[in-house]
Amino acid sequence: MNLKEIITEYPDFPKEGILFRDISPILKNPDAIEFVASEFGRRFDMSQVDMVAGIESRGFIISTLLGSRYGKGTLMIRKPGKLPGDTASMAYQLEYGQSSLEIQRDAITPRGQRILVCDDLLATGGTANAAAKLVEEAGGTVAGLAFAIELSEIKGCNAISEYRYESLVRY
Amino acid sequence: MNLKEIITEYPDFPKEGILFRDISPILKNPDAIEFVASEFGRRFDMSQVDMVAGIESRGFIISTLLGSRYGKGTLMIRKPGKLPGDTASMAYQLEYGQSSLEIQRDAITPRGQRILVCDDLLATGGTANAAAKLVEEAGGTVAGLAFAIELSEIKGCNAISEYRYESLVRY
Repeated sequence: MNLKEIITEYPDFPKEGILFRDISPILKNPDAIEFVASEFGRRFDMSQVDMVAGIESRGFIISTLLGSRYGKGTLMIRKPGKLPGDTASMAYQLEYGQSSLEIQRDAITPRGQRILVCDDLLATGGTANAAAKLVEEAGGTVAGLAFAIELSEIKGCNAISEYRYESLVRY
Repeated sequence: MNLKEIITEYPDFPKEGILFRDISPILKNPDAIEFVASEFGRRFDMSQVDMVAGIESRGFIISTLLGSRYGKGTLMIRKPGKLPGDTASMAYQLEYGQSSLEIQRDAITPRGQRILVCDDLLATGGTANAAAKLVEEAGGTVAGLAFAIELSEIKGCNAISEYRYESLVRY
């Protein structure tokens, strides 16, 4: 299945000069969803993954899909102020300014579990790297990073070079 | 399975006087996730549902879980400015001020599909009602609303009284 034929492109969204690749048509298509789930299962050895982490908010879709399909628990890596209890926070650079992500410090109990970190898109890699670092901060080992789409010209792979990652569609 | 025994409570989050019920321990537990998926399948006739909609962002987890489990496509109902293309918007009241949600106008093609709208929590019902109205605006029929948790003392059921809904845990 060629996901590029399904992904819709929107020029100048969310701002001028950006070509937005929309995964909505994949999500609407049960065959495409099934393909995404099975393709990640082919690329990662899911028997070596203990839990799946999703980066808010479209990453939750990928993590829930893989968790549901392979019988793994999932955890949320969220925007600031959304998670209750004791949290760890990690700041990262955006094109302009910075943002941060949070994880619950008890999200990975027992510690040492192997976590597959999921997001819909790899762009600069700043978000993904912060999420991976949070998994480590909470006591997990990063089993890998899974992205539906990679914008390879932005070289986000450099920001996550210490981790194994897979992307299903490259532009 | 008694989900109340799994849900963790955090007093005074996100602000003083609020008792926050956290679904994170459910998500970490594959048996609990399986229970949630099968319980919604017991309460709704999934053969009468064409597609599942998730309300950003924890609603994406419920919608993806049900979509994956029952072989349905999913669609996203998102916060303003996140969805590309031609969108419909619906404002709703918050405790202080207002917010809005958006749907892609071509999300439900062909029109007339029966959509199950999912969120993690039913509180005032304002968000859920706006989401249901957006589904109708985009040409869908609301097959029902599915919530993991209902804060029944807030009477959010009144805001969605024209729809069938199910919640798995009531406080």
